[in-house]
Amino acid sequence: MSRLLESYAQGAWFTAEDAGTPLASAVDGSEVARISSAGLDVAGMVDHARQVGGPALRALTFHERAALLKQLGLTLMAGKDEFYELSASTGATARDSAVDIDGGIGTVLSYASKARRELPNDSVYLDGAVEQLGKQGTFLGQHIYTPRHGVAVQINAFNFPVWGFLEKLAPAFIAGVPSIIKPASQTAYLTELVFRRIIETGLLPDGSVQLISGSARDLLDHLGGQDSVAFTGSADTAALLRAHPRVVEDGVHFTAEADSLNASILGPDVTPEDPEFELFVKQLVTEMTVKAGQKCTAIRRALVPNGQVDAVIDAASARLAGVVVGNPTSEGVRMGALASVEQRDEVLKSLRGLTKSAQIVFGDPDHVDLVDADHAKGAFLSPILLRADDKTAVEPHEIEAFGPVSTVIGYDDTADVIDLAARGQGSLVASVVTKDAAIAREIVLGLAPYHGRVLVLNSDDAKESTGHGSPLPVLVHGGPGRAGGGEELGGIRGVLHHMQRTAVQGTPDVLTAVGHKWVAGAQRTEGDVHPFRKNLAELQLGDTIVGGPRQVTRADIDHFAEFTGDTFYAHTDPEAAAANPLFGGIVAHGYLVVSLAAGLFVDPAPGPVLANFGVDGLRFLTPVKAEDSLTVTLTAKQITPRQSADYGEVRWDAVVTNQGGDPVATYDVLTLVAKGDDS
Amino acid sequence: MSRLLESYAQGAWFTAEDAGTPLASAVDGSEVARISSAGLDVAGMVDHARQVGGPALRALTFHERAALLKQLGLTLMAGKDEFYELSASTGATARDSAVDIDGGIGTVLSYASKARRELPNDSVYLDGAVEQLGKQGTFLGQHIYTPRHGVAVQINAFNFPVWGFLEKLAPAFIAGVPSIIKPASQTAYLTELVFRRIIETGLLPDGSVQLISGSARDLLDHLGGQDSVAFTGSADTAALLRAHPRVVEDGVHFTAEADSLNASILGPDVTPEDPEFELFVKQLVTEMTVKAGQKCTAIRRALVPNGQVDAVIDAASARLAGVVVGNPTSEGVRMGALASVEQRDEVLKSLRGLTKSAQIVFGDPDHVDLVDADHAKGAFLSPILLRADDKTAVEPHEIEAFGPVSTVIGYDDTADVIDLAARGQGSLVASVVTKDAAIAREIVLGLAPYHGRVLVLNSDDAKESTGHGSPLPVLVHGGPGRAGGGEELGGIRGVLHHMQRTAVQGTPDVLTAVGHKWVAGAQRTEGDVHPFRKNLAELQLGDTIVGGPRQVTRADIDHFAEFTGDTFYAHTDPEAAAANPLFGGIVAHGYLVVSLAAGLFVDPAPGPVLANFGVDGLRFLTPVKAEDSLTVTLTAKQITPRQSADYGEVRWDAVVTNQGGDPVATYDVLTLVAKGDDS
Repeated sequence: MSRLLESYAQGAWFTAEDAGTPLASAVDGSEVARISSAGLDVAGMVDHARQVGGPALRALTFHERAALLKQLGLTLMAGKDEFYELSASTGATARDSAVDIDGGIGTVLSYASKARRELPNDSVYLDGAVEQLGKQGTFLGQHIYTPRHGVAVQINAFNFPVWGFLEKLAPAFIAGVPSIIKPASQTAYLTELVFRRIIETGLLPDGSVQLISGSARDLLDHLGGQDSVAFTGSADTAALLRAHPRVVEDGVHFTAEADSLNASILGPDVTPEDPEFELFVKQLVTEMTVKAGQKCTAIRRALVPNGQVDAVIDAASARLAGVVVGNPTSEGVRMGALASVEQRDEVLKSLRGLTKSAQIVFGDPDHVDLVDADHAKGAFLSPILLRADDKTAVEPHEIEAFGPVSTVIGYDDTADVIDLAARGQGSLVASVVTKDAAIAREIVLGLAPYHGRVLVLNSDDAKESTGHGSPLPVLVHGGPGRAGGGEELGGIRGVLHHMQRTAVQGTPDVLTAVGHKWVAGAQRTEGDVHPFRKNLAELQLGDTIVGGPRQVTRADIDHFAEFTGDTFYAHTDPEAAAANPLFGGIVAHGYLVVSLAAGLFVDPAPGPVLANFGVDGLRFLTPVKAEDSLTVTLTAKQITPRQSADYGEVRWDAVVTNQGGDPVATYDVLTLVAKGDDS
Repeated sequence: MSRLLESYAQGAWFTAEDAGTPLASAVDGSEVARISSAGLDVAGMVDHARQVGGPALRALTFHERAALLKQLGLTLMAGKDEFYELSASTGATARDSAVDIDGGIGTVLSYASKARRELPNDSVYLDGAVEQLGKQGTFLGQHIYTPRHGVAVQINAFNFPVWGFLEKLAPAFIAGVPSIIKPASQTAYLTELVFRRIIETGLLPDGSVQLISGSARDLLDHLGGQDSVAFTGSADTAALLRAHPRVVEDGVHFTAEADSLNASILGPDVTPEDPEFELFVKQLVTEMTVKAGQKCTAIRRALVPNGQVDAVIDAASARLAGVVVGNPTSEGVRMGALASVEQRDEVLKSLRGLTKSAQIVFGDPDHVDLVDADHAKGAFLSPILLRADDKTAVEPHEIEAFGPVSTVIGYDDTADVIDLAARGQGSLVASVVTKDAAIAREIVLGLAPYHGRVLVLNSDDAKESTGHGSPLPVLVHGGPGRAGGGEELGGIRGVLHHMQRTAVQGTPDVLTAVGHKWVAGAQRTEGDVHPFRKNLAELQLGDTIVGGPRQVTRADIDHFAEFTGDTFYAHTDPEAAAANPLFGGIVAHGYLVVSLAAGLFVDPAPGPVLANFGVDGLRFLTPVKAEDSLTVTLTAKQITPRQSADYGEVRWDAVVTNQGGDPVATYDVLTLVAKGDDS
């Protein structure tokens, strides 16, 4: 008898109370494993996540969580060979497994990298600018994001047993929210193996990840307004979950990513002579056959100009004829099996629906030549291309055959193709293959409200294109309407979905304390020590140096114009400058003002400040005239130690004022500063 | 007989087929109006919004929509007196009406202003940075927001007949999405009057706003994945709507803002001697009595240190005793009537629930002294303060009496008060009254996951504080869990809720065409005419000037150090500079590099470029050493004409490279440029 998959609950592996249900190999029908969650205490798992996992994660900063994910990703990548081996039982070829396994681990590494670069080394994320809510500046608003105090339940589909759970886990982990992972049973043995390796690393805090092998039982009944459910699968199941009483009544956050009728559009400008024609056909065939077409993002509808329908079908059929189907581990096999015989039956059922209004132009639903495999034992199916001559028929826009199946449909013009694409009622992705940027704009903007992602392919980006079907960690994944209405990934966007946005109102000092970012109007501390002489451990928010005054003379302005070559008339020609509606006379260069300001605040001797690596948000507010005197106030605004370096970043608030106290320039100065001995 | 309120559907006023239901004055029970939507073609309204209103709005830019809203807001403000007059029938005092009427119109004006300042003068909103998806830079990603192609259905509560619909309408309008407005019947007469004045202005495009007076009938049955429903009202009704088949199955976007058990917390540091004590009590009494406590954001739970319970009750009771209740139009009346006798009955019912675990310490549910009003005819009620000695009793944390009712509850310490606040299961707002920024941080971060807004009040911001109960257009409004799980307002955040986010993948040229913002790697056009000599009408994205090379000598660096006073060792001390881990020798000042670059790209003679008003995102990438030669490439990146000025903003992409072609500095230069004769 095969091994019974285990769950990982409350910090320990759990074996079900019964013998479980057998899971068959997609390739030869042999029993790969058994699965059951009988006797699993799912309520206890929810409590453990809330009481142990959440607090442990929230005790870490974004950067600390990122460092753990990075180490985890590198460890998994180093040991991926055994994942590939087991993956073949799901029907996947090595190419398919790469999408799932390398794609999944790559997503973990991408999140580790994004978090370090785009989030503070802190546990609160500041959203948007400070809003001044009163004239005196004593009452301000700042939006913050904090992690929800609940659990992120992740219900995944059978087609991506590795990527599916890692792409949901990584953003939740970075956010500081513990996960309970529930893979689809059919391919859960691969999820369980990868999860086991994760636990073995010992990297992740107790309670931060748990696994349910088998039924989720009454898990949802135990959730509340701080919890979330992210579901990937069929639209029908999504609708069921969305109507669950805890979602409807208690505000459980629910998001779904469902199968959709994704379209690929051949632009009206493309003819068979253009390289884009071949790109279109090649991508279509790739999307039909990778993972045997079992991708939520696969191309279900090929929308082509009426005049090109025959040419596309001919070219696609020729390519499809060269696709070798069979045992995914055998040499030369390009398409493996579907995940199960049941899945194949589902596809054949959908196909019967599609053929009500479309005719099969390539492939035989009942037969396919196989290499090293037996049609009677494995879940194999020929790629099937259909043609729908009635473009407004319902079936091609509604029925998704979740396998190697696509339908070619002709269109009249760009308005027509936008309308046809929208008949899918909301899709995860569409692609447009065109040479023409103006056509791209028109179609992209027409498609956008109905799509989570739109890819424009042409001969310039084809070589680097990641393809119609590939969600990327840095781009959002999900779509409106039929596609589930959810949104995942998208870099930090996916992290924020696990956090609550809150508007905080208070004084500048309160907002500084809450957000760990100094806010204009908050206390400034001018001490005996120049702040450039303090390392990261010594520096405090609000530490300030005031420099100046320094008078700007007409000679300075003249000299600066000559020295830099910036002889713009406002700096050099009194008559023309007087006619300028904003200046009304000679003004100092903005670059002169900030250069002089640096001279006023800098501390010249070697010390912890290593470099000024940038300036943000510089605005010139009041013209500086000859004989004006400048004073600069520089205040430590944000301190970001790097996890893996002996320095970090300090953002300084800079305000240059004139002799009347008017601000003439405001900006942020960015420096690298050494950490100091004790850090 | 009173007037039958009309609906506004498909561009015309509609009178119901029956006589309608009478609406009674809250003050004296007299009939103010009648209401009915019998015979109203709501399906036709949805079609009209989609077919006429949506396209008309989408043909405008964000700035054009903002200009219409601004004019609308100013017109409504000028004629607001008649709104105040009618508002009294809802039971509102002049102070209450100001919150509703001025608050509503102010929200319209705030959105007009935010859109002009924070959105492009275009119809596509770009979200976040360009993501490079391949090493060569031919394949990039950019997130965009486009308006949904549906209708925003807005179902409002009875308590804010003006603010309620304007705060939902303004963001949808800016987004480019038409609205169908459905006010609560009880106070719909005031909504209908304001709406009538809106239509009379003739400012808004046909189909962009429609009104349902009376039942929404089967409106929701006609919605789909491009439509949204924003509901304000009870949690029970929210749950009903959330389970509607079109929401569950077809992806209608649903958001709710529901009544919640908002808490106000007296900090553990505050004693009756502190001014904060009085601020806490004063705010509590204000929130109990404004709108007779009929605000989703009112304080329902006053959480105070155990030792201060008696003092707070004494002080609040003393203040409450001074609140004059009666006819809202009468002199000296501070609290008017509830919206209806039915509402008062609801409050009394809730009060019976609360008194299971709390005792009334101020007010008599059956009696209140009235000025110019008759208890038997109007919906009057005394303010009621309760005290719950069992802090963990269920009722005070679950039952919302939607009237002038609050409960005082004692707590032990900050951890305890955070836990008590969370027992509300998610609230719109909480306030914390404390002198101590560290306590503020601890409590705010503890409350944040459960709240949409947290206000910190102390003697520094009290004068400018807008108060616990006031949602502001620039801050988000809504809360998780019990509070409905929705989010509205928050400036541009509220606009984006009406738009679909889409990841667009393609070449730099394609992204430039789609987003109307030049993307690095896209075509640059170096013409005969310097781009600074082109006005806004002539300038094209991608117009480029290349300047240089100019060599930087050691003498330049020495001179710049001396001239500006920036004698940082990396520019002046060869030995110390050599020891710097990032430079390894003398480097030119970053400010010198950008000053010289300006000298290389500027065109000195007077022309359309009026001023350089700022610099964004300046990063120094490669150190510039003596004898390096600098070249600058300046490219028109984004062009934003102002609606109401003869100039606009041009953002230029600047790249400074050295003789090896390495980028040494990248940044955006911001200029003001004249529009030109034809614009």
